[in-house]
Amino acid sequence: MIKVGIAGATGYAGIELIRILLGHPEVKITKLAAKMDGKPQEISDIFPSLKGRINLVCTDLDINDMAKESDLIFLALPHKVSLKFVPQFIKLGKKVIDLSADFRFDDLKIYEEWYAPHTEESKKLNPQAVYGLPELYKEKIKKANLIANPGCYPTGIILGVAPLLVNKIVETENIIANSLSGATGAGRVPSMVAHYPECNENVKAYSIATHRHTPEIEQELSKLAKKEIKISFTPHLLPMNRGILSTIYLNLTKKMKEEEIIKLYQNFYKKEPFVRILEKGTFPETKNVYGSNYCDVGIKVDERTNRAIIVSAIDNLVKGASGQAVQNMNIMYGFKETLGLESPGITP
Amino acid sequence: MIKVGIAGATGYAGIELIRILLGHPEVKITKLAAKMDGKPQEISDIFPSLKGRINLVCTDLDINDMAKESDLIFLALPHKVSLKFVPQFIKLGKKVIDLSADFRFDDLKIYEEWYAPHTEESKKLNPQAVYGLPELYKEKIKKANLIANPGCYPTGIILGVAPLLVNKIVETENIIANSLSGATGAGRVPSMVAHYPECNENVKAYSIATHRHTPEIEQELSKLAKKEIKISFTPHLLPMNRGILSTIYLNLTKKMKEEEIIKLYQNFYKKEPFVRILEKGTFPETKNVYGSNYCDVGIKVDERTNRAIIVSAIDNLVKGASGQAVQNMNIMYGFKETLGLESPGITP
Amino acid sequence: MIKVGIAGATGYAGIELIRILLGHPEVKITKLAAKMDGKPQEISDIFPSLKGRINLVCTDLDINDMAKESDLIFLALPHKVSLKFVPQFIKLGKKVIDLSADFRFDDLKIYEEWYAPHTEESKKLNPQAVYGLPELYKEKIKKANLIANPGCYPTGIILGVAPLLVNKIVETENIIANSLSGATGAGRVPSMVAHYPECNENVKAYSIATHRHTPEIEQELSKLAKKEIKISFTPHLLPMNRGILSTIYLNLTKKMKEEEIIKLYQNFYKKEPFVRILEKGTFPETKNVYGSNYCDVGIKVDERTNRAIIVSAIDNLVKGASGQAVQNMNIMYGFKETLGLESPGITP
Amino acid sequence: MIKVGIAGATGYAGIELIRILLGHPEVKITKLAAKMDGKPQEISDIFPSLKGRINLVCTDLDINDMAKESDLIFLALPHKVSLKFVPQFIKLGKKVIDLSADFRFDDLKIYEEWYAPHTEESKKLNPQAVYGLPELYKEKIKKANLIANPGCYPTGIILGVAPLLVNKIVETENIIANSLSGATGAGRVPSMVAHYPECNENVKAYSIATHRHTPEIEQELSKLAKKEIKISFTPHLLPMNRGILSTIYLNLTKKMKEEEIIKLYQNFYKKEPFVRILEKGTFPETKNVYGSNYCDVGIKVDERTNRAIIVSAIDNLVKGASGQAVQNMNIMYGFKETLGLESPGITP
Repeated sequence: MIKVGIAGATGYAGIELIRILLGHPEVKITKLAAKMDGKPQEISDIFPSLKGRINLVCTDLDINDMAKESDLIFLALPHKVSLKFVPQFIKLGKKVIDLSADFRFDDLKIYEEWYAPHTEESKKLNPQAVYGLPELYKEKIKKANLIANPGCYPTGIILGVAPLLVNKIVETENIIANSLSGATGAGRVPSMVAHYPECNENVKAYSIATHRHTPEIEQELSKLAKKEIKISFTPHLLPMNRGILSTIYLNLTKKMKEEEIIKLYQNFYKKEPFVRILEKGTFPETKNVYGSNYCDVGIKVDERTNRAIIVSAIDNLVKGASGQAVQNMNIMYGFKETLGLESPGITP
Repeated sequence: MIKVGIAGATGYAGIELIRILLGHPEVKITKLAAKMDGKPQEISDIFPSLKGRINLVCTDLDINDMAKESDLIFLALPHKVSLKFVPQFIKLGKKVIDLSADFRFDDLKIYEEWYAPHTEESKKLNPQAVYGLPELYKEKIKKANLIANPGCYPTGIILGVAPLLVNKIVETENIIANSLSGATGAGRVPSMVAHYPECNENVKAYSIATHRHTPEIEQELSKLAKKEIKISFTPHLLPMNRGILSTIYLNLTKKMKEEEIIKLYQNFYKKEPFVRILEKGTFPETKNVYGSNYCDVGIKVDERTNRAIIVSAIDNLVKGASGQAVQNMNIMYGFKETLGLESPGITP
Repeated sequence: MIKVGIAGATGYAGIELIRILLGHPEVKITKLAAKMDGKPQEISDIFPSLKGRINLVCTDLDINDMAKESDLIFLALPHKVSLKFVPQFIKLGKKVIDLSADFRFDDLKIYEEWYAPHTEESKKLNPQAVYGLPELYKEKIKKANLIANPGCYPTGIILGVAPLLVNKIVETENIIANSLSGATGAGRVPSMVAHYPECNENVKAYSIATHRHTPEIEQELSKLAKKEIKISFTPHLLPMNRGILSTIYLNLTKKMKEEEIIKLYQNFYKKEPFVRILEKGTFPETKNVYGSNYCDVGIKVDERTNRAIIVSAIDNLVKGASGQAVQNMNIMYGFKETLGLESPGITP
Repeated sequence: MIKVGIAGATGYAGIELIRILLGHPEVKITKLAAKMDGKPQEISDIFPSLKGRINLVCTDLDINDMAKESDLIFLALPHKVSLKFVPQFIKLGKKVIDLSADFRFDDLKIYEEWYAPHTEESKKLNPQAVYGLPELYKEKIKKANLIANPGCYPTGIILGVAPLLVNKIVETENIIANSLSGATGAGRVPSMVAHYPECNENVKAYSIATHRHTPEIEQELSKLAKKEIKISFTPHLLPMNRGILSTIYLNLTKKMKEEEIIKLYQNFYKKEPFVRILEKGTFPETKNVYGSNYCDVGIKVDERTNRAIIVSAIDNLVKGASGQAVQNMNIMYGFKETLGLESPGITP
């Protein structure tokens, strides 16, 4: 059994980590922290669904205290906040899985351009961080002490197009990623954008061509293609709680049949327990991954335009955040990769 | 490990049984049946969320075949259909948990008045059936071969008022149960009532004072109170998938404080792992039981009218159907009552 | 043409007033005010649906300025705020329709117990205020200068039970009003309770037996019955934008047929253009009044318990607020009562 | 006053036509027809929102009877059904606005490839039909007897990109149209795809690269660009009732500033009352056109990829169907183009 602390326990990624880890046979949650303004609270008072399942008080973060009680710390904190805490946990000899964007970028300048300045300490630490997308970086994750857990949109998009880029059968220009997200992606702090009457019976695009997941996606696609790639990425906010559906358009460089490409995908992911390549003619729906760690991928070849249209679906809080974090933990600790993540989710 | 067959696997109670049983360490699902019109289909083609988690073909029901491969059969079939099948499974020496209403009534006449005629065989079998509400009938369930799994509305309402009736602190007249249900309660067959544009942005009462769960609730409340009780019960259809919230009004026979009644409830359910009595001033919300087997109960004393207002919440597909069925199975087989049902559900 | 100003234009009742008045042939909106913190803004920038339909800047409220440009002022302000402004507009010779609760109570003590202290000026003004439920007080409304526009829940409940009380065919004890409301009832300021992921796929009761609409309902029911009435009233928050459905339970004092009671209702409301009494066996749904000023009422006699179960539906923002305010305006100014309110709403 | 008949009155386009025309000062609805299987029914029994607003019985379609009572007939029938009826109405000297796809194609072969065979009569009539997109074909519509009312997706997409193509500032290859639609687009007949529990909390792409609106969009874009255009078009089904949001990607042929393109759009649509070009930095949301006939268009230039990203929003039942049909009627009869369509819709 490993001992685990969670900082940022009161957010949606936090409650999702708790939910998953409560069902994990090798983990004991020992510490919960969040911004509590000096008023500690039973976590089951904050999330009454947990009543009877866990008795832990959520306090303000005390790094030494959490480090003392934990082998591994999950940080589900806002971007720019992890920067300060991660180096301290690492210095105390702890393993860290950071769900923020703060250590996702190889190139510090890109991070600083799209997010915020690094500190001296975080800069030094950055090269040690491993981008925690297990389907691409499993070997590195095994040995890592610091995981930069991928963003929700990047996870679905990168998994959706990786086989095409690695197999060099698509143009690297004109890649369009159009993504649709449920409202939990906006976090747990009330805001006009996620106010029920504004969000319900409505759909909108936001951060068009300017969303901060863009450089993260481009970094990974460029590595896969071994050349610099720029994409157009448009996220949309949908009236539902969970799920991201990405519809991705790429130009094929030669005529290919749908079956061939599906086979390429099946081959590429054949050892991956959480990527499901759908059969010809069937396509993902977010409800099929609701509450599960799966990424479903469907493939269409549009022969009229010689274009591949890839659709991927994830649960933004599971494969897009906390489930993937647990998957990374399993790999780091040599547990079975699927441990605690076997549930097919909930439908309908 | 026990071997389990599910008839009615393609409905919402069916998929929910599969979901829960896949996480149950003492169960192996061996057979899936439903009305397939001679066209067997992979269950994971019907419910793609199950892809990679189960490889079973769903066929038309063949009683002998299912009996041969199963120790226990769950019947998630429409009312009136179980009548025919249950006696045959019992005759073949199998245990049966029947999710329909067909064996829920002590008094055959009431069943026949509200539902349909019994057959000779089902009539004979009826006295053996145990009403599967574990919080009231645990000892009988332990020895039962045939469980009549309670209806969704009755579960929440009976659990919500049992302590008041047993402790004889309320009038038995003027009991009003006002219930709100998500649309999965309407089943998986498309209909105008559950057609998305009709159901979304809408709420309606239905079967006012005539819903067939009324006599089931009255039977159980009458047994608890040891006198005949008639209630007014109004179900409503809400634009959400899961959950039943029941708001129940009862006149107190004497002045009592909220704290006293809450204590009565805590005492009444102190050994029950799936009933959570909420603290004074807090009340259930269906999201707190989404996907879990809990029944949450909140208590308000309206001193102005000397009335107790009880609010209970369940997930209609879990504690209101498939979760309760698994709870009954656990009790029948001497497993820990909570086995396979430990999840706190999913929120938000 | 009358000139109209709206204070509180940026809330949901405000935009609804604008929407309705834009289609009213006898009204010109001249002034819009709200809490703008010194930053005036085009109303169509706040509500882009209005773009191209109205060119008015919304400013902080300047009473003299608004009074100068308006014959009639709608106040769609929070409770306790109208107290201060209403006397000033009245003193300046303006007519006022106040959508807050501040002038709804005959008995100042009840207002002060459930809301806040009156001022000396508002106390003096209170007797002049007419409770603006046209179906009950049309003659008074015709001559009024100050209308206290009814609350949303009270409107549906009072209209739902008035004929029973006036005809003295029900007990005045044991009246239960169970109401279900869409999330616009929570207003436009973001809050955890109306945060999309918390409100979606969820239902909850709130302010059980303590909601401030209780004394308002009781005041009106008591006047109708000519005796003091206390009720139990429980509001619930539903995952939808608009609509209130109230299910109301009353004990009949003698055996009566459904048809007789329906006839009573039809008779009671025969001159009322906005109350629709549904035929035997049909019941209201909120979608049927979505966007319209109708109050639909359905009647069930539960012969088993000799109880009348009344279901009423309104759009909380129309008949429950802004539509009723316009109906009051029409009556005050001698316009046809339905002017500007003829739309059957939008469905689905 | 003109007399109007509606065939297909029981579908969602039908009720929307009734809703809009009830508010139109120059129209009297005289006849309603639909597939009633010999059982005529009050339209207000089918759509109770209409109760008190219209007293008309909906019958099976009798062409002579409807023609006798109507100057103009709206056909809101399924594709392939209008083929038979339109020629008969035209022969009887009636004007027809057909909401189906049956007369939308200049090239009969394209219609027959994507839909169904024409009849001899419908073939002959086809050249007389005018594609009823008023922003492009107003002059022709004025003189038309037969309007082929555009599809919902095509309306939003064509209006969204017309100025770019006419001004020849984009590549005609690599046009991607990604569209999101509410569930009313699936019609009023219950189906698994629009079954509430399947559609709620879910999003999916469908008919990827094969949707029948594709050739309709391509026909119109090709005419605008004066060269053949092929696009990739992916519709998605969203958990909401109304609205289509289209996000369209096009490669600019030269560097252009957002402001320049916005100015081009404003100029292009400067006389069009129902197209609103949003200001720089603001983008459409479907709620802003809910219930109104507006098409909102927002423009983003992605300088990193030199791509224009256009977002358009319409209400699929108004500008995407019945509202546009009434707009066409207004033009045909010389009424003010906005008559009966002035409402800003309903929000929230």
